[in-house]
Amino acid sequence: MRYRIGIDLGGTNIKAGLVDEKDRILLEKRIPTDAERTADEIIGDMAKLVRDLLCESAAAGGDIAGVGIGSPGTIDTDTGMVVYSNNMNWENVPLGPILSDMLSLSVKVANDANCAALGEMKAGGARGCSSFVLITLGTGVGFGIVIGGKVFDGAKAGGAELGHTSLISGGELCSCGRRGCLEAYASATALIRDTRRAAERSRASAIWKFCGGDLSNVGGKTAFDAAEAGDPTAQRVLEEYIRYLGEGIVNVVNIFRPELVLISGGVCVQGARLTGPLQAYADRYCFAGKRGFIPKIAIAELENSAGILGAAALFDE
Amino acid sequence: MRYRIGIDLGGTNIKAGLVDEKDRILLEKRIPTDAERTADEIIGDMAKLVRDLLCESAAAGGDIAGVGIGSPGTIDTDTGMVVYSNNMNWENVPLGPILSDMLSLSVKVANDANCAALGEMKAGGARGCSSFVLITLGTGVGFGIVIGGKVFDGAKAGGAELGHTSLISGGELCSCGRRGCLEAYASATALIRDTRRAAERSRASAIWKFCGGDLSNVGGKTAFDAAEAGDPTAQRVLEEYIRYLGEGIVNVVNIFRPELVLISGGVCVQGARLTGPLQAYADRYCFAGKRGFIPKIAIAELENSAGILGAAALFDE
Repeated sequence: MRYRIGIDLGGTNIKAGLVDEKDRILLEKRIPTDAERTADEIIGDMAKLVRDLLCESAAAGGDIAGVGIGSPGTIDTDTGMVVYSNNMNWENVPLGPILSDMLSLSVKVANDANCAALGEMKAGGARGCSSFVLITLGTGVGFGIVIGGKVFDGAKAGGAELGHTSLISGGELCSCGRRGCLEAYASATALIRDTRRAAERSRASAIWKFCGGDLSNVGGKTAFDAAEAGDPTAQRVLEEYIRYLGEGIVNVVNIFRPELVLISGGVCVQGARLTGPLQAYADRYCFAGKRGFIPKIAIAELENSAGILGAAALFDE
Repeated sequence: MRYRIGIDLGGTNIKAGLVDEKDRILLEKRIPTDAERTADEIIGDMAKLVRDLLCESAAAGGDIAGVGIGSPGTIDTDTGMVVYSNNMNWENVPLGPILSDMLSLSVKVANDANCAALGEMKAGGARGCSSFVLITLGTGVGFGIVIGGKVFDGAKAGGAELGHTSLISGGELCSCGRRGCLEAYASATALIRDTRRAAERSRASAIWKFCGGDLSNVGGKTAFDAAEAGDPTAQRVLEEYIRYLGEGIVNVVNIFRPELVLISGGVCVQGARLTGPLQAYADRYCFAGKRGFIPKIAIAELENSAGILGAAALFDE
């Protein structure tokens, strides 16, 4: 049996999985990332996780095709270099070559959002699709773009960063230094900010109840909970959030005209309360309207394992 | 000798050219489009242009590989159908099949902006590039996107419409029905609108002089002329226009990370007065800044013949 190892390098945890030829995760191990550490320390832990999995795989009589890594940031997939990751505070870290030297295994590196998209294509909500877009709503807004069965992330390193395209040019400050990027409006971080701001303007809002009177407790779920309890302030926050996200999705459709748009991230537990209004927005505002093809908007299926499966799938291409 | 015929179907003229194997236009003919006419009448004129060119080609002892057409609007390139063109007021016009029947020749249809990009790649400013973006600033804002030597216009018909992605969501009304699209700020139409508005607010502006006291004479050049004469009102209009266009270019870079960005359209006679500040804007605001690859921004070279050459090049693929 020929296995692949997939690593999902996240801001919180490093997760590694042993993946079989049928895209099943046989075994998963994790270590906290502790992103303040040096790149060498973090890469050392990645090697440790892989060695643990190698022992298990050897015991099962299998060999390893290679190690795939999904990393945040701008990746040069040809060289395995992390060109720039503001989350990890990495710049020009030769992640692939270092790990390959340590393990004497072939190592491939790709952007984490791209790996998640590959995972969804292999074993999740995009099975059977060859062209689709996965939007991940978290601290930022990540995009995994698959065209003709292959990940597209730009002719040169640093493409597919649709989180950093304009939503309201000149508006909210974005982590990338510009003002008004989609990420500054549609990320979970932005939803939390807007929920807090709305509560500050409305002392009577039920948002206060759902965060125990302390706005530092507001999370991505708070506005949804308060809105469901009938709070008009929270309902307005969500209407606006869905419009931001709807605008981002219409942009994606007008650019890529994909077969399918998948959404992932914590906010997706809302399911049809999210996809229903987003689909209506896309139906109405995509260029050429109903004359053109409007993709289905759906929730991703592999929330936790997409990254590992997609990283492993880097060895399928 | 094997020739191809390229047709550039524009809002003003239908231009057709006989193109040789070295991407040279040997002969060009044109007829006014008169876009109010029926699709059948317009397609009849296209057939007439082709027959004229066929006579010339036969006289030169050549044969014809096929007829390529660059058409405005959303094109289904597989079937040669114009799905939707608001400029021509066409909906589901089977342009390719009709013309192919009339001429007993193979006919291919693609979006006009895509054809212009192919033309620039064959014989213009993008020679030697395999991944680049051509932005055409006219009545609207058109995008021709080439990835790996091939035109990309979406997995389904109606992609590559970056003119209809958000610049200032909720802002100026766009021809597509949404508010705040790039086209509503960066087209020549938008520049003319903003020049007029600025003049209306400032009776002392030199804009009035350059339009002979009549704002209906304002064109895409007026603000540039008045700004060069030292008029602060016109200078502010241009500063804002360049920022809009700069934002659009940064978006394109963050999405496609192309080797090159070309700009075409009447406003490009401004040359370095346009590309200088746009390059500075891109250098500053593209995601990951100087850590990433930032493409050169240049003026397209084939203003008038790119469409014909690119339409002919549909038979090179």
